Amino acid sequence: MIKVPGEMPAYTYGEAAVATSPVSLEELEQLKISVGFTADDERYLRKAGEVLEGQTNQIVAHWRSGIIASIPNLAQHSRTLEGDPIPKYLAQSNLRFEQWILDTCLRPYDQDWLNYQQEIALRHTSLKKNRVDGVQSTPYVPFRDIAAFVAVLNDTIQPYLASRGNPAAEVAAMHRAWCRSLQLQMALWARVYMDLAKTKSEW
Amino acid sequence: MIKVPGEMPAYTYGEAAVATSPVSLEELEQLKISVGFTADDERYLRKAGEVLEGQTNQIVAHWRSGIIASIPNLAQHSRTLEGDPIPKYLAQSNLRFEQWILDTCLRPYDQDWLNYQQEIALRHTSLKKNRVDGVQSTPYVPFRDIAAFVAVLNDTIQPYLASRGNPAAEVAAMHRAWCRSLQLQMALWARVYMDLAKTKSEW
Repeated sequence: MIKVPGEMPAYTYGEAAVATSPVSLEELEQLKISVGFTADDERYLRKAGEVLEGQTNQIVAHWRSGIIASIPNLAQHSRTLEGDPIPKYLAQSNLRFEQWILDTCLRPYDQDWLNYQQEIALRHTSLKKNRVDGVQSTPYVPFRDIAAFVAVLNDTIQPYLASRGNPAAEVAAMHRAWCRSLQLQMALWARVYMDLAKTKSEW
Repeated sequence: MIKVPGEMPAYTYGEAAVATSPVSLEELEQLKISVGFTADDERYLRKAGEVLEGQTNQIVAHWRSGIIASIPNLAQHSRTLEGDPIPKYLAQSNLRFEQWILDTCLRPYDQDWLNYQQEIALRHTSLKKNRVDGVQSTPYVPFRDIAAFVAVLNDTIQPYLASRGNPAAEVAAMHRAWCRSLQLQMALWARVYMDLAKTKSEW
């Protein structure tokens, strides 16, 4: 279910506090064409959202505890600089991680969505990481690790898409739409890191 | 088959003229971990290379004539600034595109490979695009279009991987390895665009 801002910590989708993306809706449309994202994909993402809706807790646990936690290079980004867990940070960002799955599937890719892509990326850079949760952790998540982890997100979402007995062709179409969306999002996140790179590389 | 430099125009894999990547082998190892790339994936990429070897001409034709040519935003990058075709440029870069498929599958991911990732990215930026082929075309390919097109490359390679009758599980494993490699490469290409972004954004 799409959450209303305020229902979870620091989830500000569509709020005025979220800055306008420097990417135009026209550029977004062109990007959709480059990635092959069509109205069919929107339709299949809605279906994917219905399929994933009750599973987001399990999926994020799989990503966080099942994968990220065992990769020190990634796990450090939700820990203190001394390497201690920060349960509140993890809990809050996990909730938003869950919501991101649903936003990916169920939101229209409009100006609010575009703006929130920027917000998501900013929260992984030194410009905003740690702030919204009031924690002290690594200053940023390098772009390369986000780009790399997209492959993991794409791969591991498959069984969850298939878990509700949808026909194989439909599961494949949902997965294709998901992969296109993630690549699109990753391209948008890259913009934030590249703008930042004028003064500071967080590659 | 892995080509020897000199066998095709401006293919300089492993040559001294290729600059050393600013990315260390240690960073590459960490990236492999983030993307989930294992020795199994290397093995499946070798298999994929065997499967794709006789099909690279057809695959690149599919990408270029079947997809890129119909997307003006992408097609422009192999045309003159007036929009006219440059057959020599297309022919030469297509040969290297074919070879890239094989290098992705068959090369060890060592220092030479790392250096050539940088060279590939540079040849899409204003620092090197057009030069090696001596043509006048768009000054660069925006990073976002490369990132987006990776989703197309990942999606469309599937039938070619499946076309030689390998068992479905093996095809899936080859595809997983391919997707991991492409995400890894894309993360490396991003480094070149981010270094460049200090002075000039080609996002």
